[in-house]
Amino acid sequence: MSTPQNDLLLRAAKGLPVERSPVWLMRQAGRILPEYRAVRASLSGFKELVETPERAAEVTLQPVDILGVDAAIIFSDILVIPEAMGLSYEMVEKRGPHFPQTIRSEADLKGIRIAEPESLNYVYEAIRITLKGLDGRVPLIGFAGAPFTLLCYMVEGGGSKTFSTARKMLMQRPDLAHHLLEMITQSSIAYLKAQVDAGVHLLQIFDSWAGILSPDTYRKFSIPYLEKICRALDSTVPITLFAKGAHFSYSDLAALPCHTIGVDWNSPPDEVRQRVGPDRSLQGNLDPAVLYASGKEIAEQTRSMLRAFGKNRYIANLGHGVYPDTSPEAVKIFVETVKTFQHD
Amino acid sequence: MSTPQNDLLLRAAKGLPVERSPVWLMRQAGRILPEYRAVRASLSGFKELVETPERAAEVTLQPVDILGVDAAIIFSDILVIPEAMGLSYEMVEKRGPHFPQTIRSEADLKGIRIAEPESLNYVYEAIRITLKGLDGRVPLIGFAGAPFTLLCYMVEGGGSKTFSTARKMLMQRPDLAHHLLEMITQSSIAYLKAQVDAGVHLLQIFDSWAGILSPDTYRKFSIPYLEKICRALDSTVPITLFAKGAHFSYSDLAALPCHTIGVDWNSPPDEVRQRVGPDRSLQGNLDPAVLYASGKEIAEQTRSMLRAFGKNRYIANLGHGVYPDTSPEAVKIFVETVKTFQHD
Repeated sequence: MSTPQNDLLLRAAKGLPVERSPVWLMRQAGRILPEYRAVRASLSGFKELVETPERAAEVTLQPVDILGVDAAIIFSDILVIPEAMGLSYEMVEKRGPHFPQTIRSEADLKGIRIAEPESLNYVYEAIRITLKGLDGRVPLIGFAGAPFTLLCYMVEGGGSKTFSTARKMLMQRPDLAHHLLEMITQSSIAYLKAQVDAGVHLLQIFDSWAGILSPDTYRKFSIPYLEKICRALDSTVPITLFAKGAHFSYSDLAALPCHTIGVDWNSPPDEVRQRVGPDRSLQGNLDPAVLYASGKEIAEQTRSMLRAFGKNRYIANLGHGVYPDTSPEAVKIFVETVKTFQHD
Repeated sequence: MSTPQNDLLLRAAKGLPVERSPVWLMRQAGRILPEYRAVRASLSGFKELVETPERAAEVTLQPVDILGVDAAIIFSDILVIPEAMGLSYEMVEKRGPHFPQTIRSEADLKGIRIAEPESLNYVYEAIRITLKGLDGRVPLIGFAGAPFTLLCYMVEGGGSKTFSTARKMLMQRPDLAHHLLEMITQSSIAYLKAQVDAGVHLLQIFDSWAGILSPDTYRKFSIPYLEKICRALDSTVPITLFAKGAHFSYSDLAALPCHTIGVDWNSPPDEVRQRVGPDRSLQGNLDPAVLYASGKEIAEQTRSMLRAFGKNRYIANLGHGVYPDTSPEAVKIFVETVKTFQHD
């Protein structure tokens, strides 16, 4: 793995000096770009795009070329792991993922397996094609879902406001939950290692549903598995942990062997920095809805965010994925504001 | 309005001495009780139940009789205010509320009005019938949705994970948003005053979607309207503000002329107390999913919660509404644990 020409992201993650803050956006490869929608429309569906390396690489490169971001993130889905474990999903237009089968019992658990990393070869192939297309310009980010978030989908069977069925398992069958979490963790470690072998420069773990747990429950059912993943990958590439909505978890996350903590837009930067301490980088946290505002307002709020986080140990991003109906022009203003900002 | 025999809730809200903490549950009148489901099944739908005072009073009284809680909360819905403003809704089974018409423009705003409080006479009538049924046993809580949360539904047209359409209005047409918020606020003040006139002993304002905003946006689009409501009702009955997910807002809420701040299960009690200060009561915050656990675990976690909040200025509750598939036996264990707990 060679260092990209623009290695701001990697230096910021490692706490090395940077000339300016790096910037990228969660979900930057996606429906905001007409170029993405054209690729998507030429295929049968979302899953065909995920599973076709040439096309996944193509949409991964689009935001680098069009938006001028400082990193690419491989186009894929966190649900490829449940699928590789034997639980396939459908992506229902405008409704989100749906699992025809779910995990609710020992018998269900016996029907799935720890994923063979080879079953996700299409992801590593997409990574290799993307790296050729990047030609060393910017780093490529690999990712996976956090074990707890994947459990939520595998038990609940789809999205939910409360994930109360998944949380019921944590309360009634913690043994089953821990068994499933361990299987997901082992699957994810092999998958992330293979992504690193294929050449990604940084890994991000998305704990998208962290915010539905209490601090105690999060400490029991998520932190230990994030720790296993971090320890297994620690000597490879920098790791970012993003536990959306889990404001109570910042100090716990910062105690793990990771490099960067993702911050959502609910959390004031100064408070997060205080909880995380000086030895981890922070990433975030503009409210994605700010990109609906005027260019002037976007630039002002972006500068305000940059001042609040400070120059060092910081990666500019939104506080969650960019909303699909955001204008690419608004995203460009966000990116350009970060790239031209000078700290006093 | 006479003081109920069991006035623990009112004393706890006012910071007066109590022998033990009062306890009730958000959504206690609802699908958890077979007795509720029987009433509901005898009617055409949810809205008929809301709009039929005798039946609404009947289900309001059920949890007092069956679960032994220290307060009743009038059975109704926060969406009666949008409806009284001219925007009617449908309650779609298993999907939630749906508004056939939404507010997106000046023209849409012209189509609605500040609600005439008389149009909600069925609620005040349900309050009067309930008070007769209570016969002075426990206090009756009245409620309304916070203006920001009602705006979310009126603009979005229904539930949403992100309410990105509503948040787009805040960013692109703050003038329209403030106009709508002001209309909702005026409607709500008259409605809450009429509830007090009908005899409720305490008011709770539910800002259910507070957690989707950034601290700055919440300060602009929610706090000022909560403040108007609190000031208008300040001299009547104690007021509880519950801003779910808005952990960043505790100190702002505590600065308003209210009595109690609701706490969700993400927020550690000691941190909330520190932000709120000593002059407001706290209400919450057991994770509703804990009621899926064993009786022993429910009792342990409830005692742990009681110790963390302390005896004074505290009202025991869940951190959000009880989940519909919770066993009434589990709820009884929660209630009994609070009622028999002795602080060291």
